[in-house]
Amino acid sequence: MKFCSDCGAEVDFRIPEGDNRPRYLCDDCGAIHYQNPRIVAGCIPEWDSRILLCRRAIEPRYGLWTLPAGFMENGETVEAAASRETEEEACAKVKLDGLYCICSIPHQHQVYMIFRGQVINGHFEPGPESLETALFSEADIPWKELAFPVVERTLRRYFKDRLTDRFDTYLDTISRPNKRPL
Amino acid sequence: MKFCSDCGAEVDFRIPEGDNRPRYLCDDCGAIHYQNPRIVAGCIPEWDSRILLCRRAIEPRYGLWTLPAGFMENGETVEAAASRETEEEACAKVKLDGLYCICSIPHQHQVYMIFRGQVINGHFEPGPESLETALFSEADIPWKELAFPVVERTLRRYFKDRLTDRFDTYLDTISRPNKRPL
Repeated sequence: MKFCSDCGAEVDFRIPEGDNRPRYLCDDCGAIHYQNPRIVAGCIPEWDSRILLCRRAIEPRYGLWTLPAGFMENGETVEAAASRETEEEACAKVKLDGLYCICSIPHQHQVYMIFRGQVINGHFEPGPESLETALFSEADIPWKELAFPVVERTLRRYFKDRLTDRFDTYLDTISRPNKRPL
Repeated sequence: MKFCSDCGAEVDFRIPEGDNRPRYLCDDCGAIHYQNPRIVAGCIPEWDSRILLCRRAIEPRYGLWTLPAGFMENGETVEAAASRETEEEACAKVKLDGLYCICSIPHQHQVYMIFRGQVINGHFEPGPESLETALFSEADIPWKELAFPVVERTLRRYFKDRLTDRFDTYLDTISRPNKRPL
């Protein structure tokens, strides 16, 4: 941020009076521009005991596999965002079964909120942001070609929990960037 | 938003090519300025079977009672945000017991994430954004003077769940503005 979105003047970046962290401040109109984490809503879509993954047609992580997920929009619920993203990225309608994972990623200013879901009628195909969509059994998951650490962690936990069919909502944190060579 | 925060030119508000909802667009530098919901992280701080509430010293809802809660900041986890807000608003350190409520408020572009917690050593006092802080038993909660519908709903459910000491994480949505005369 270089300019004030309210008045167009140049902004400064400093701690406002009475605050305790730096913000973008406009000394012309007095606006304080807060920046906050975004929610990435997504789904673990299941069909016939297999998981629907999408191969990314966009950066970052072009060509790698991921769960359908994306930024929650203003005016929607978390559930609606997870369903919408699954429909946009994999053209799949899902019946959500429950919120499964809430994962803070502080260095990326993101909080993932991932639901479990059943693919309705088993229909899916790549949306505009996917090169490919496919169902994977646990043994076939392309573990070395997953786009994000949060996807790998969520899937590993999911398969473990599926053994007992007990899926409590869990909190997680990914604190450091992915250091794997990709 | 009237001006581009990247280059200072005036922005337009329309649906970008390939998108499906209007965004703030800069035709000078090409920037698209997305706006997304914010997370309000908070806590139900318990001490001696009573709940710690704060009377707001700021707008909106000046003078009404609320659970300690506020906007999650970049660079922190949801848990850290809930603890920080409790410390800022009520000068109380808490041991978080678990995530209790996730409530989407689509018309306000907010998602509340409220934890249960125990006040450490029972210490609390008003922070700069609170007029007053106090412990309330269920019978004494100032139901008619609560600041937000999400606070009332969360507390009613909390007391109900406390009867069985079973507090599953639950999803909720508040779809319409509060119509109560306040």
